[in-house]
Amino acid sequence: MPEFLKLIPTQQAIQILLSHVEVKVTAEKVRTIDALGRVTVDHIHSPIPLPTFPRSTVDGYAVRASDTFGASETLPAYFRVNGEIQMGSAPGFDISMGEAGLIHTGGMLPDSSDAVVMLEYTQTVGTDTVEILRPVAVGENMIKIGEDVQSGEEVIQPGVRIRPAEIGGLAALGIIELDVAKMPVVGIISSGDEVIPPEENLLPGQVRDINSYSLSALIDRAGGISKRYGIFPDQFDELYEIASQAKRECAMVLITAGSSASARDLTSRVISQLGAPGVLVHGVNIKPGKPTILAVCDHKAVIGLPGNPVSALVIASLFVVPVVESLLGLSSVGVRTKIQARLSTNVPSQAGREDWVAACLSIGPDGYRVDPIFSKSNLIFSLVRANSMIRVPPDATGLSTGDMVEVFLLPGQD
Amino acid sequence: MPEFLKLIPTQQAIQILLSHVEVKVTAEKVRTIDALGRVTVDHIHSPIPLPTFPRSTVDGYAVRASDTFGASETLPAYFRVNGEIQMGSAPGFDISMGEAGLIHTGGMLPDSSDAVVMLEYTQTVGTDTVEILRPVAVGENMIKIGEDVQSGEEVIQPGVRIRPAEIGGLAALGIIELDVAKMPVVGIISSGDEVIPPEENLLPGQVRDINSYSLSALIDRAGGISKRYGIFPDQFDELYEIASQAKRECAMVLITAGSSASARDLTSRVISQLGAPGVLVHGVNIKPGKPTILAVCDHKAVIGLPGNPVSALVIASLFVVPVVESLLGLSSVGVRTKIQARLSTNVPSQAGREDWVAACLSIGPDGYRVDPIFSKSNLIFSLVRANSMIRVPPDATGLSTGDMVEVFLLPGQD
Repeated sequence: MPEFLKLIPTQQAIQILLSHVEVKVTAEKVRTIDALGRVTVDHIHSPIPLPTFPRSTVDGYAVRASDTFGASETLPAYFRVNGEIQMGSAPGFDISMGEAGLIHTGGMLPDSSDAVVMLEYTQTVGTDTVEILRPVAVGENMIKIGEDVQSGEEVIQPGVRIRPAEIGGLAALGIIELDVAKMPVVGIISSGDEVIPPEENLLPGQVRDINSYSLSALIDRAGGISKRYGIFPDQFDELYEIASQAKRECAMVLITAGSSASARDLTSRVISQLGAPGVLVHGVNIKPGKPTILAVCDHKAVIGLPGNPVSALVIASLFVVPVVESLLGLSSVGVRTKIQARLSTNVPSQAGREDWVAACLSIGPDGYRVDPIFSKSNLIFSLVRANSMIRVPPDATGLSTGDMVEVFLLPGQD
Repeated sequence: MPEFLKLIPTQQAIQILLSHVEVKVTAEKVRTIDALGRVTVDHIHSPIPLPTFPRSTVDGYAVRASDTFGASETLPAYFRVNGEIQMGSAPGFDISMGEAGLIHTGGMLPDSSDAVVMLEYTQTVGTDTVEILRPVAVGENMIKIGEDVQSGEEVIQPGVRIRPAEIGGLAALGIIELDVAKMPVVGIISSGDEVIPPEENLLPGQVRDINSYSLSALIDRAGGISKRYGIFPDQFDELYEIASQAKRECAMVLITAGSSASARDLTSRVISQLGAPGVLVHGVNIKPGKPTILAVCDHKAVIGLPGNPVSALVIASLFVVPVVESLLGLSSVGVRTKIQARLSTNVPSQAGREDWVAACLSIGPDGYRVDPIFSKSNLIFSLVRANSMIRVPPDATGLSTGDMVEVFLLPGQD
């Protein structure tokens, strides 16, 4: 029989769950250009300093800074122009005292030069002489070798989700492939005698499977690979068999229960037989989503989600996504951007329970405003009409018009 | 010669650009399950009402509400139990006056019943009689046919990016494939005599191509298809030829200039020859990124990006992403989530110019805090170390410690 615990708060439930999941990140090599959204597994150190040569940040003349001291518009310093530094090449000459080299933005400073005078503060005199009208300090208008990155410096840590900036940085270092975390496979099982696949025609009393599809998309978006096992009737043997198979084949298993109380109890009984320690949390203190089951069986997370499609998506965002992130070895798990917005209407809630309310977030001249979408039974199209969820903290007895409230974007919302 | 205009503000520049781009969205069919992140092209109407049958939201007894009026714990109403409604089936019986049907959450209400009494407020008496201890109103504890969605109702508009919620909603309606916008191909050309591919070894004065790679990732993330044309020297004929080819083959072209002023001028000359109206904006009032060229040539956007990799990414986020979104037919273009955060350090800026400063956003008990990352020359690893950018509005002369400031997450940042 399932181990019934009292309803516990979200953060505590997540911690209990994550503390029992075994994370074994395995690596696979990908090309850097294909690594967007993947997660690093190694400490990545720079094989070179960046830049690899002293580089001008302006168009002007490379000089020895000490030669420019005291130069002014009224008393310019005269320099012999040694040559022009071609882009992409070594200068081919040094700078001795009183000498300058014409240089372009991004060009390589000649040996013995240590600063660049901007073109605006120079004036050519004949073909090989230039007047310098302002002094420069050592290092001015240039980037030193290794100023961006030192050779051997750690540039990317393990557990980082790769963004366009990392792809650019790796290209700069000549790192054209790297090890990333293999994407964990998450098995999804739907149960319910009333549930049929979306492509079939509905008979009276039947509903189409929503959760297998919305949860697949959520998993894929979080960096996992979803594997849909299909729909199973509310029978212990069949459900237990497919759940066991999914547990063998996947890093994590989700079971969405049928709508009835007996179907939910069945899910709970199945999960409690899948391995130790079994059910950790039965019921979370969240609306919608109370009948959530959080379990770890033989080190793998097995989560029983409510059959209601809105509850299933909300609960999966809160509990399943952090496990996927954890299985990827991400260093920050379960972090979502919180937006403060002004509430347009009263939202009732029950003290002691965390409520999530579908909402429309919009921005106006006075900042963000959020309009709750009230829907009797958390119907799926209330989420389709929403772009965000308002969180009503457990210690609140409702939120009032005009309050600044916590809003989170819906998964996939830009 | 390029048409030099004075530096103009970001929003105005984006509007000028978008107003000249011709948007021709073409559709392709995808399976709903593969449609995550794609953009709808049609008005999607529901072929059915949802739910398709009157559905119980609780476990209890389906009744005629009028029969329960006056029922109480002390004076229960007695009902004859007609049978149990199986999940996923038609009830197989009606409800006449004084009759009830045992029903589960999600079950189908029998004809002539119009409410459900929760199990908690009932008591069975023998095998076929139940006491009802509380009255229910018509429609209580049930969802009516079409209460989520009416048959024929528009459920998703064109120009919507598909999220897990839409995938679930479409599954519920039995819509297993749909037309979405074809992903626009964006050509990327790198120029610069000093630039080499990431896989090659650096000679003195050379740097590896960063922008082709970071911009590719940015384009892919925005929903486009990036096509890298490679690196070209700073010569008019070669650059013009490849830019013309890219313009023929792609929906949009990006050219990242070499670092020198002459390389930037070359880009400008090439773009101005690619078609009418040509260069619309030469120079935007943004740091980093002033030398940006916004052009539309024969209805296609052609954008000259600064060679500096940080500038290129910042400018592409501001100007290229909205064009990609526009080419996808997205109904909201250029919308990014703005976070208010408390600034940890003074940020100097020049009045009249919009500054973007790489930063680290973090959340603490008092809300968001943002630490600017100061970097002399906008080096790529300053972005790798950042998770966000602070926007310094053009009318500000710097921001002060403790100010609440506008922060935007970097592309790809969760």
